[in-house]
Amino acid sequence: MGKSLVYPKRESNTMNRYKHRGTYDLGPIHSIINSASVLHVSFSPSQDDPFPAILPMIGQMGSFEFPSSGIDDPLECYLHGYVSSRIMNQARARGDEGLPVCIAATHVDGLVLSLTPNSHSYNYRSAVLHGYATLVTSEEERLWAMKLITNSVVPQRWENTRIPPDGAEMQSTTILKVKVVDGSGKIRDGGVSDEKKDTERAEVTEKVWVGVVPVWQTFGEPVPDRLNRVKQVPEYINSYVARANEQNRQHAMDAIKVSLPKEEQH
Amino acid sequence: MGKSLVYPKRESNTMNRYKHRGTYDLGPIHSIINSASVLHVSFSPSQDDPFPAILPMIGQMGSFEFPSSGIDDPLECYLHGYVSSRIMNQARARGDEGLPVCIAATHVDGLVLSLTPNSHSYNYRSAVLHGYATLVTSEEERLWAMKLITNSVVPQRWENTRIPPDGAEMQSTTILKVKVVDGSGKIRDGGVSDEKKDTERAEVTEKVWVGVVPVWQTFGEPVPDRLNRVKQVPEYINSYVARANEQNRQHAMDAIKVSLPKEEQH
Repeated sequence: MGKSLVYPKRESNTMNRYKHRGTYDLGPIHSIINSASVLHVSFSPSQDDPFPAILPMIGQMGSFEFPSSGIDDPLECYLHGYVSSRIMNQARARGDEGLPVCIAATHVDGLVLSLTPNSHSYNYRSAVLHGYATLVTSEEERLWAMKLITNSVVPQRWENTRIPPDGAEMQSTTILKVKVVDGSGKIRDGGVSDEKKDTERAEVTEKVWVGVVPVWQTFGEPVPDRLNRVKQVPEYINSYVARANEQNRQHAMDAIKVSLPKEEQH
Repeated sequence: MGKSLVYPKRESNTMNRYKHRGTYDLGPIHSIINSASVLHVSFSPSQDDPFPAILPMIGQMGSFEFPSSGIDDPLECYLHGYVSSRIMNQARARGDEGLPVCIAATHVDGLVLSLTPNSHSYNYRSAVLHGYATLVTSEEERLWAMKLITNSVVPQRWENTRIPPDGAEMQSTTILKVKVVDGSGKIRDGGVSDEKKDTERAEVTEKVWVGVVPVWQTFGEPVPDRLNRVKQVPEYINSYVARANEQNRQHAMDAIKVSLPKEEQH
């Protein structure tokens, strides 16, 4: 068994409440990030603006330097997507130092319906990373990151499209690379957790249904575009849709079955 | 026809790219927020910390002062959930002035698979609000907000649980109220949009399948807890699960059918 790497605890990523399922392990944190369709990326737009900004972006953890890295090895976060010029300009202005960003990914796995409103909760998995975002300038690394991100949306998609991107496409694409300084994850699973003051009152337990509504992200049957000329939906797409649906559903169902020690639930 | 209220444009919420489906209308923005299971809330933890923080929270737009307000009226955002003591302490320290926060909600409606990696996209709806968060102190308003938020998870859930919360429960619950100063929404829908240089090349179009994989959030069959004593899943839960599933699926399918003028797509 190898060592399990953990992110350092800083004030900003140390969890004070609901520690029960907090993790600093790289593996689970990176998995939560990599399986999220959307990452929410926050940065401070300027000294004059009191409000942080949040952008929804597509991203993926990976290592260009050490491509054989596993999910629990040190990785960078590569971002692409609905990129305002603001974040790009800010990152460019910071140069090698990078723009401080926060990256968050959250999966909702279930609605936990308890006896009292206060005990209601979600089953969920969330991860947060802090790091410094720089613009990737090397053509080779940009191309590698574009493939990484495209194949995170649908595996094998990159090699089944018109590649490589031409000069204009390479120029119009900006990839941010976030060097991670710390991270944390939080997982809530299991069933309802009510207090004795309610569980021992028949007039409450006989009236209020308690349980979990499992929640997951579903992919529907692929819909060909009117410009599509390929008769059948390719196998790599169909099999991914089927696999993802089954995994997502299974994850929500498995989360319910986990039985936490009572005092650790919420 | 009444007037349609819009949020003011500030530098921080003005969209520079992909304007095609940008909106400043209160109605659509509030709807995107209210239909999201999770909101990502960002704030600057301290002057010494370069990184913004992001918390996943449950929230809902509403008006305590004017309960008859509709979705396109001015509303506040009430937040509850995975609340670190940090955000609460910061908001408390700011008093009436409030803590500057950014709130983001994103729904993924489809994977848009185009001829080239660069034209790949998501169908999505996203909304961002900026505002000042204060702690709700009035018991009456706190109770109102707790009901608002509980019923946003499952309609009618509040009145079907053990209520009202007792003194200890009221004390342990913190509600943040965000007075919104600006907001914006962005919607991408439709099919693929490739450029002529590819759509006119048979060797590309005959090889690459193009279309949209619809994506939506699914609620599974409610799973009773081992502590549950109510024999049947209540109708208000079953009907909500069925309604939400149908609406979510329909939303993803409808998004595909929208046909944007070519030059406005990406």
